[in-house]
Amino acid sequence: MNIRAGRLKKKMNRYAASFTSSLEFDKRIFEADVDCNIAHCTMLAAEGIIEQEDADKIINSLDELKKAGIEALDLDPSVEDIHMAVESYVTQKIGDVAGFMHTAKSRNDQVATDLRLVLVREIEEIEHDILKFIDNILKMAEIHTETVMVGYTHLQHAQPTTFAHHLLAYANALKRDYERLKDAYNRVNMNPLGSAAMTTTSFNINRELTTELLGFHGLMKNSIDAVSSRDFAAETVFCLCMLASTLSKICEELINWSSYEFGILEISDEFSSTSSIMPQKKNPDLAEITRAKTAVLYGELMTVMTILKALPHSYNRDLQEITPHLWNAVDTSKSMVNIVNKMLFTIKIDKNRLKDLATSNFSTATELADVIVREKNVPFRVAHKIVGRMVMHALENDITPGEIGSKFLDKIAQDLIGENLDLKDEIIQKALDPYENILMRKTVGGPSPDTVKSAIAELNAFLDKEQS
Amino acid sequence: MNIRAGRLKKKMNRYAASFTSSLEFDKRIFEADVDCNIAHCTMLAAEGIIEQEDADKIINSLDELKKAGIEALDLDPSVEDIHMAVESYVTQKIGDVAGFMHTAKSRNDQVATDLRLVLVREIEEIEHDILKFIDNILKMAEIHTETVMVGYTHLQHAQPTTFAHHLLAYANALKRDYERLKDAYNRVNMNPLGSAAMTTTSFNINRELTTELLGFHGLMKNSIDAVSSRDFAAETVFCLCMLASTLSKICEELINWSSYEFGILEISDEFSSTSSIMPQKKNPDLAEITRAKTAVLYGELMTVMTILKALPHSYNRDLQEITPHLWNAVDTSKSMVNIVNKMLFTIKIDKNRLKDLATSNFSTATELADVIVREKNVPFRVAHKIVGRMVMHALENDITPGEIGSKFLDKIAQDLIGENLDLKDEIIQKALDPYENILMRKTVGGPSPDTVKSAIAELNAFLDKEQS
Amino acid sequence: MNIRAGRLKKKMNRYAASFTSSLEFDKRIFEADVDCNIAHCTMLAAEGIIEQEDADKIINSLDELKKAGIEALDLDPSVEDIHMAVESYVTQKIGDVAGFMHTAKSRNDQVATDLRLVLVREIEEIEHDILKFIDNILKMAEIHTETVMVGYTHLQHAQPTTFAHHLLAYANALKRDYERLKDAYNRVNMNPLGSAAMTTTSFNINRELTTELLGFHGLMKNSIDAVSSRDFAAETVFCLCMLASTLSKICEELINWSSYEFGILEISDEFSSTSSIMPQKKNPDLAEITRAKTAVLYGELMTVMTILKALPHSYNRDLQEITPHLWNAVDTSKSMVNIVNKMLFTIKIDKNRLKDLATSNFSTATELADVIVREKNVPFRVAHKIVGRMVMHALENDITPGEIGSKFLDKIAQDLIGENLDLKDEIIQKALDPYENILMRKTVGGPSPDTVKSAIAELNAFLDKEQS
Amino acid sequence: MNIRAGRLKKKMNRYAASFTSSLEFDKRIFEADVDCNIAHCTMLAAEGIIEQEDADKIINSLDELKKAGIEALDLDPSVEDIHMAVESYVTQKIGDVAGFMHTAKSRNDQVATDLRLVLVREIEEIEHDILKFIDNILKMAEIHTETVMVGYTHLQHAQPTTFAHHLLAYANALKRDYERLKDAYNRVNMNPLGSAAMTTTSFNINRELTTELLGFHGLMKNSIDAVSSRDFAAETVFCLCMLASTLSKICEELINWSSYEFGILEISDEFSSTSSIMPQKKNPDLAEITRAKTAVLYGELMTVMTILKALPHSYNRDLQEITPHLWNAVDTSKSMVNIVNKMLFTIKIDKNRLKDLATSNFSTATELADVIVREKNVPFRVAHKIVGRMVMHALENDITPGEIGSKFLDKIAQDLIGENLDLKDEIIQKALDPYENILMRKTVGGPSPDTVKSAIAELNAFLDKEQS
Repeated sequence: MNIRAGRLKKKMNRYAASFTSSLEFDKRIFEADVDCNIAHCTMLAAEGIIEQEDADKIINSLDELKKAGIEALDLDPSVEDIHMAVESYVTQKIGDVAGFMHTAKSRNDQVATDLRLVLVREIEEIEHDILKFIDNILKMAEIHTETVMVGYTHLQHAQPTTFAHHLLAYANALKRDYERLKDAYNRVNMNPLGSAAMTTTSFNINRELTTELLGFHGLMKNSIDAVSSRDFAAETVFCLCMLASTLSKICEELINWSSYEFGILEISDEFSSTSSIMPQKKNPDLAEITRAKTAVLYGELMTVMTILKALPHSYNRDLQEITPHLWNAVDTSKSMVNIVNKMLFTIKIDKNRLKDLATSNFSTATELADVIVREKNVPFRVAHKIVGRMVMHALENDITPGEIGSKFLDKIAQDLIGENLDLKDEIIQKALDPYENILMRKTVGGPSPDTVKSAIAELNAFLDKEQS
Repeated sequence: MNIRAGRLKKKMNRYAASFTSSLEFDKRIFEADVDCNIAHCTMLAAEGIIEQEDADKIINSLDELKKAGIEALDLDPSVEDIHMAVESYVTQKIGDVAGFMHTAKSRNDQVATDLRLVLVREIEEIEHDILKFIDNILKMAEIHTETVMVGYTHLQHAQPTTFAHHLLAYANALKRDYERLKDAYNRVNMNPLGSAAMTTTSFNINRELTTELLGFHGLMKNSIDAVSSRDFAAETVFCLCMLASTLSKICEELINWSSYEFGILEISDEFSSTSSIMPQKKNPDLAEITRAKTAVLYGELMTVMTILKALPHSYNRDLQEITPHLWNAVDTSKSMVNIVNKMLFTIKIDKNRLKDLATSNFSTATELADVIVREKNVPFRVAHKIVGRMVMHALENDITPGEIGSKFLDKIAQDLIGENLDLKDEIIQKALDPYENILMRKTVGGPSPDTVKSAIAELNAFLDKEQS
Repeated sequence: MNIRAGRLKKKMNRYAASFTSSLEFDKRIFEADVDCNIAHCTMLAAEGIIEQEDADKIINSLDELKKAGIEALDLDPSVEDIHMAVESYVTQKIGDVAGFMHTAKSRNDQVATDLRLVLVREIEEIEHDILKFIDNILKMAEIHTETVMVGYTHLQHAQPTTFAHHLLAYANALKRDYERLKDAYNRVNMNPLGSAAMTTTSFNINRELTTELLGFHGLMKNSIDAVSSRDFAAETVFCLCMLASTLSKICEELINWSSYEFGILEISDEFSSTSSIMPQKKNPDLAEITRAKTAVLYGELMTVMTILKALPHSYNRDLQEITPHLWNAVDTSKSMVNIVNKMLFTIKIDKNRLKDLATSNFSTATELADVIVREKNVPFRVAHKIVGRMVMHALENDITPGEIGSKFLDKIAQDLIGENLDLKDEIIQKALDPYENILMRKTVGGPSPDTVKSAIAELNAFLDKEQS
Repeated sequence: MNIRAGRLKKKMNRYAASFTSSLEFDKRIFEADVDCNIAHCTMLAAEGIIEQEDADKIINSLDELKKAGIEALDLDPSVEDIHMAVESYVTQKIGDVAGFMHTAKSRNDQVATDLRLVLVREIEEIEHDILKFIDNILKMAEIHTETVMVGYTHLQHAQPTTFAHHLLAYANALKRDYERLKDAYNRVNMNPLGSAAMTTTSFNINRELTTELLGFHGLMKNSIDAVSSRDFAAETVFCLCMLASTLSKICEELINWSSYEFGILEISDEFSSTSSIMPQKKNPDLAEITRAKTAVLYGELMTVMTILKALPHSYNRDLQEITPHLWNAVDTSKSMVNIVNKMLFTIKIDKNRLKDLATSNFSTATELADVIVREKNVPFRVAHKIVGRMVMHALENDITPGEIGSKFLDKIAQDLIGENLDLKDEIIQKALDPYENILMRKTVGGPSPDTVKSAIAELNAFLDKEQS
């Protein structure tokens, strides 16, 4: 069975055959391709387009192939692709009657169908992995609702928070990554089969039936669009880029925080490496590679999108080149989410260090300004200036937050507004205490332990709904 | 009002101030920023956090500013950004009481809120423009349900179709672009206000109230995530990239088809340019620039995504650099969709040329193979080979499709399968007639006039639903 | 030999080991790694840092390994990378004395050295392939110095040229691609060995000696930079992107020109494919895949550059992730240049079609305007307007260039400037003759056959120089 | 003067005119465009193609325009571009004789010439700025040849070095960025003028003369290539991406090192900002924005390269869209290099903190292993394991490097190799002393003060050569 034999006189050049062959990455769609052929033949027979007897022979042979697995196929580059390899197999088994299986079908609609069938399953798996990761984060958060730490803006100490509150920032980002993928899924889960080369067929096929047999949610409504469009691939890769971006953020923090200087956490030995020359080293390689693989995802997206730019209708062979990048994006992001999930669970948090950092460097200054506003009814801007100047003086004179009292504050206030604030020392010290800060931040989305517990409960309810 | 005066001793370096200033692109969020301040102050007073009297003064001043417009602001680079410029304005008008407006609010949550407020409106506009474009395409398609043309794969003649059927491929892609944007919209339309710097605030604010006042659909559930995340920007830009990709496909076809060689259509003079040196030239510049601007969109996405990679929590100034690229993506894609919409409507189709192309180059060969399958019950593969060989001989001997008859076909059949097909000449000629081909392709998604009319009706129903 | 056994207590997690392993793509640097070890040990012994006897044992073992090939290594993921696998092999063969080979060397400097060693060879090969391609283009150009064709701007007919002149546009672009790669080569061909982990070593090593032994042109002058920098990889990938971009331009033209509508050329059957459903199809798949693979190169560049962004000194594991993308860029572009070279040589040019296109659509209008300027001394702008109007009238009235005479032109001239031009018919017809146009374009860089022959000679001289 | 008036019947649609207008970014090439016209007219007269008298009128008018500046032009979108605006100006001043200036010239070759003329100047400026930056770094390095610090791999403590040695890593990377730009410069500095629309012209022009008049180093050797190619733009943007990448690395370190946790340096107030809500904040905004702008450069490169992909010959309007991205890349990178240069000079290094970090966390462990190799002639792998285990025990028992002695080490050695090492305490302590480590690393490229001084001298010699 050589489709070239009619129209063309020469075999394809050997280098060209290898350059154009998609067999390497077609392996991934082997099962889907067989299923697609079975569904198509079932439909052809049901509609009386081919004889039931012929269909049965073909389908039996396909069932056997499925059991035998891809190894049963001849995958020489000259075979071009998996579709031809499957057809060849059936032809070898049952003879020319196999030729009926390509009735009313083209590789153009078939490959689009195969890709979508496999991608549907892959997205479901990644969705599942994201939910599992969120679930683990929530379990970790439950333990750390009282673990005080300093939050950062510009990598500088900003305000006190808890590790649980911080973990929920991860969970919320992952939830959006999940929802985005779910939206993409709806656009992936559509059946192009029956579009044939690009204009459907004069055979009276039944596209609703193959849609049902293959388990798609709907069918593509224009045959030219059905064989030409790969925005479903670009969108999936984009969603995985965003997921990777979230993971890279987490990994950046693991890298920073496990440095000697931060000293906030330690990644377990199982997820660390050492150096071949420096005996003392313990390195966060997993986090670094995850960070780098985010760039790999970005590159894949750029490839897919650039292939699609200004490509005229309908099918062009350029589209074939999208496939390996789609699969690489899927595999890479899947391994990333699972590795980060596992690794995050091994970290050992140094609560004392976290508390020290939250206490020693004026991360509570905002609260002091707020207290001045509330107690003395001065505008926030004035309070902000007084506290800012106070911090500057404290740093210059090595005065720690714990040493700040009414007198020190009033000296600044006199300078700046010409009057004392007369705040009691204990009010000042309460404002400057990180745990007190956290307790007071009860606003929705904030770090107070109770607020965080409610947030965890809400996210658990979300997980329950999605996993049911 | 100089927020530096507390903590820092020196003014920012002049070059540094200009390098970091966001004022140029902040102009876009001016109104949103004022609205956001009004909503925030309204809430602060409603919750008793600031005096109603003070709130009124601030709000009145903000109302005046809104009327006066951005020109009323001092936009010197040393002012840093629009938030400070607005606060400065109010301070100048009502004095230190203005300082209360920054209570329980940070630029971190405010800028996120402003961006989302403006983006919500922009997405609505682009959605509207896409629907308008689809509407125009449908109107054009209604006229061309019988306009026979050849469809292409690999830029080679594939199978006959109609111009209406081809236009519906555009419409279906645009429909997905629209739906993708709608999904993104849901993630944009969320309120971060109240997150303050990153941990909310100890003031007892009411985030539900500001959410309602600003018209958001919901509020962001974690304050660290709320001020740090810009995936909403990346996702919007990605959706616009996909829209641009669809437009670039249309433009590529306009460029190809208006070439002398294709000669299928002519773009109107109003959407063409000439040459400064070659007097005979008429060029499709609009289509070319649209094609190129697709690459601009891609570049913006790469920028936004690369900024986000491995950025630790929470707010970092890097995020500021995302904004101009978001707006450029919005403006560019909006102008693209409107230009392509207008331009497409000016084209003049050469129906005779279209018909000639569909008739003269064996684009109906698939149908002839299908007829052989149906009439003679030979496997498709065999029929494919016979017809392929027939085309090869016809091209070599300058025989046109109109000259193909039973005798010619049987000579090939004898060669290849050792027997005649005995197909009548009129059956062969019917199979090779492009219009007959189209009439027979009634499968859902196919080009037969009735099928296309149903598809148009379905898309019109979709438009009605979305526009209601 | 397990480098983890000192500092870390647990083996690496199985998934983590597989996630971080570079063994798959390390295979590529196997020989370089062995060579690098040999050079390093040779130097260590020469400088008296290790015993000559120990060095000999190690080197002998490495020589054996080189002969045995990579299959001799244990490549289990737990081995981490090729460096450890090689060291393990030697250790197994000669025992603990193997441990001396890692003296004064780290994987950080070694991997950088290995990559550069291999890349130097790869660039040389690609340079050679580009020169070979240029050589073929020049041979083809020699045949076509009189093959008249129309040149395009905006895919519209612009001015007459020859196919040889057009081919030289390819050759000039490829020449720049070659020169760019040569510049990059100089930055690749530098020796980082001896930088060890990042600060060199207290052993008294001789970096000049290893530089000489490994054949590098020079050595890297700062050890931190030497182990951290991968701009050499990014630059190489960029150069390959530009090469791919040139090839994509050629392929786009092959695709357009082999369409039925252009009908300018035919790609040979050996470099074409057909369709599984449409028996008449002959498709330019090779050109399409080359076009798409250009996007793959772009994606790889984006990946490499994004990994490098904001990565602090010195070595980070992120760098490992660059390697497979470098090799993929190398392999992909190498196959692309060779395929396009081969394919271009199989095309069959339709000279009659080329001439018809050059003659029938006023591509010579510029020359007519130039003649009016020269003969009548009117400003070019006036001549441009007259000829532009003339073309408009001719198209509207189906008048071909061959029918244009003095009378027709003067009617337009009267309309526009109120006087006749009184150009003789033969002068007008000469101006409108494409071959005459070409003969007159003798300016350096232009299409006249003699000018093109000089250009070919100049390029041949360049090839001779580079290949000597 | 309306070039449309000949061939086209209608004015361009208003939106289309605005969509296609390049006037906004053409401003940048205004002077170059005038210079180019002057050179071209000078040549036309010198070759007798136009009358000297007419040329003089045109050139005088152009000189006046140059003095008057771009404000003298009518820049309405309907004017299309700067070339037409300039021609319009001259026409208005001297009448129809202005029409001669477009003889033998097209906007296609002119715009390519203008872009290259301006870019040549811009590259020279950036090259100068890079050299200035290197010069400053060397000055800073001279001061810090004895400033001991810890070097990092994987953001973990690796080995002791000096701040000067680290600064030289910056200098070496910048030197490559400079050299890369110099290579690109050679490909930019080529004259396309005289290529006209794409095939040169039948006028007997002198391209060598305009090349000389405009100061180009050479001329482009194929007219189709000359008007079509923009790889010079892509290459320049790539070089700027690499420069930005170097700057982003520096900024990442400034951000990390100015964190409270690292506490290694403080950026001056002039290059810092504070927070609108958190009074204590001092943020490294300049470094963050530089880091983000690196992504902007990357996006611009992706845009330029994607526009170029698969664009057929010769000029297509897509090329226009490259220009603003080229200029944005130029302006952005220029401001980045100058800001980082200035900012780096304001940092205050905390030498005590640097020394503490170098001393307290076993960054000298490699040296101890090396000493064991040298003194006891055990293989490095064995020494590596002993020291690794020693560090593990020390960390678990809170033993600092300063407390390590012979006894402690031998306990480990006994465990692992069954014998004592019997290294004297002072040898151990010398090996563990960071300053001693540095003194011993005298290998080329290493951190010893003398080695670094030589490296500085070598770089200073390079600067002298380049700046002369």
